Amino acid sequence: MAEIIDGNAVASSVHRELKEELAGISAARRPCVAFIRVGEDPASVSYVRKKERVAAEIGIESRLHVLPENTQQNELNALIDSLNADGGVDAILVQAPLPKQLSERDTFNRVRADKDVDGFSNANLGLLCQEDPRAFVACTPAGIVELIRRSGVNTSGRRAVVVGRSLIVGKPMALLLMKKGMDATVTVCHSKSEKLAEICAQADILIAAVGRPQTISADMVKEGACVIDVGINRVPSSSTKSGYKLVGDVDFENVAPKCSKITPVPGGVGPMTVAMLMKNTLAAYKRHMGI
Amino acid sequence: MAEIIDGNAVASSVHRELKEELAGISAARRPCVAFIRVGEDPASVSYVRKKERVAAEIGIESRLHVLPENTQQNELNALIDSLNADGGVDAILVQAPLPKQLSERDTFNRVRADKDVDGFSNANLGLLCQEDPRAFVACTPAGIVELIRRSGVNTSGRRAVVVGRSLIVGKPMALLLMKKGMDATVTVCHSKSEKLAEICAQADILIAAVGRPQTISADMVKEGACVIDVGINRVPSSSTKSGYKLVGDVDFENVAPKCSKITPVPGGVGPMTVAMLMKNTLAAYKRHMGI
Repeated sequence: MAEIIDGNAVASSVHRELKEELAGISAARRPCVAFIRVGEDPASVSYVRKKERVAAEIGIESRLHVLPENTQQNELNALIDSLNADGGVDAILVQAPLPKQLSERDTFNRVRADKDVDGFSNANLGLLCQEDPRAFVACTPAGIVELIRRSGVNTSGRRAVVVGRSLIVGKPMALLLMKKGMDATVTVCHSKSEKLAEICAQADILIAAVGRPQTISADMVKEGACVIDVGINRVPSSSTKSGYKLVGDVDFENVAPKCSKITPVPGGVGPMTVAMLMKNTLAAYKRHMGI
Repeated sequence: MAEIIDGNAVASSVHRELKEELAGISAARRPCVAFIRVGEDPASVSYVRKKERVAAEIGIESRLHVLPENTQQNELNALIDSLNADGGVDAILVQAPLPKQLSERDTFNRVRADKDVDGFSNANLGLLCQEDPRAFVACTPAGIVELIRRSGVNTSGRRAVVVGRSLIVGKPMALLLMKKGMDATVTVCHSKSEKLAEICAQADILIAAVGRPQTISADMVKEGACVIDVGINRVPSSSTKSGYKLVGDVDFENVAPKCSKITPVPGGVGPMTVAMLMKNTLAAYKRHMGI
């Protein structure tokens, strides 16, 4: 049976480290992150609340801006511009997904690079391609790297397969895994990929970011692989009060017995996304304060 | 025996298309590209001369700025800044490699995104990650896509293996091949990759960008694959007047008989790099002129 990678425990360690680091800094003001939420999507409400809670715990100030569902691009841009110009704001996070009249790409690119702690702007994605240590790296892939590192998984020269080519996970994940120091041989698969099962079965490190439950079955996993499950899917369940439960993209029950390490859902990658957001916010603050 | 993909012929077609397009545009001024060369590296001298010649042939004005070998970063930056601000300049190309006192990354990032026809700035690399059609894409990978397309090679769902993870070729190549419309399953290998031969042998499309002669041998190539050779290596030769000859990264003689299509060196990818530079310059011009 695989070792379960405990994302909550690793995230707690990161929070503790950040809190200690921050406590050691005496400066005129505390770090500050601004959250922008457009509309009342329940998952977004819950994600932002979680981020506010963790920020407070670490000692990071947060401000929440809620805009109505029918917000237009120029209105959202105006808010971003004012936060870009605000010397008291270190970090800006626009919670995705956005209502469909808004362009996620234009929104992400509007955030000033040195406040773009989500790492989705073209400026930061490009710095990641350039392996520039100043890049803010997208929080989910950055969190996965932390999990892999702290679990003692060796990536150098090994096969990593990323299933999913999104801007939020797949692409930055691939760029991170192939960069110097990580040195994995990286394959990116997606909805059009032929022989998906065969390719996944070659992975020493398999990262599932598909967004569809049970996509990765046991026959797609090599004996002894490390499996990272990025999926957060709601499926109906008669055993919970809410009528649904959260599952990943991996058939956990059948995959766990044959792999060496695996992340659960929930409690795997999810908490690390929040931890990396805080890490990026602290880094932005230090840069702004010249620390 | 494989079909030889004639890069010179495809590049000539592109030049002709661009020349015709430009002839159809009546505007106050012609497109203009500024070349910056630092020092007298013979290969750089020859590359820039080739680019000037092709620009003239198409009807693109070019200006050459030559700086001494010992140029400092602030001096190079000042020249780039003045070209960024010059309304008569559509495109700026800083010929790599640069002398070692200069940072290629900082130099590339200094060029204004809408004049960065080389596509190496973080702004354009990020737009490529975002699959933004406004991205200027690095010329060598963009040229390879043209060669693949015009040769009728199907990429959707197929295995593409890129050997090399450089900023100039490997990474943008991988991003291009995985994007929507190309839809290849992409693997990036590099100097640290284990089982390189085995992975290469799975490729339907194999792209060698290693910079070492004879790296790709016949046993590393699948029967019927399409092989693209990006390498340009000088090796000693008793049969040429200069005492050297140019060879690629692929053992052409032994690989050609088993693959379906292959690019030669010289006359394969090389000419396409220049053609794509001209294509990007024309695109920058049209954007600046509001055409």
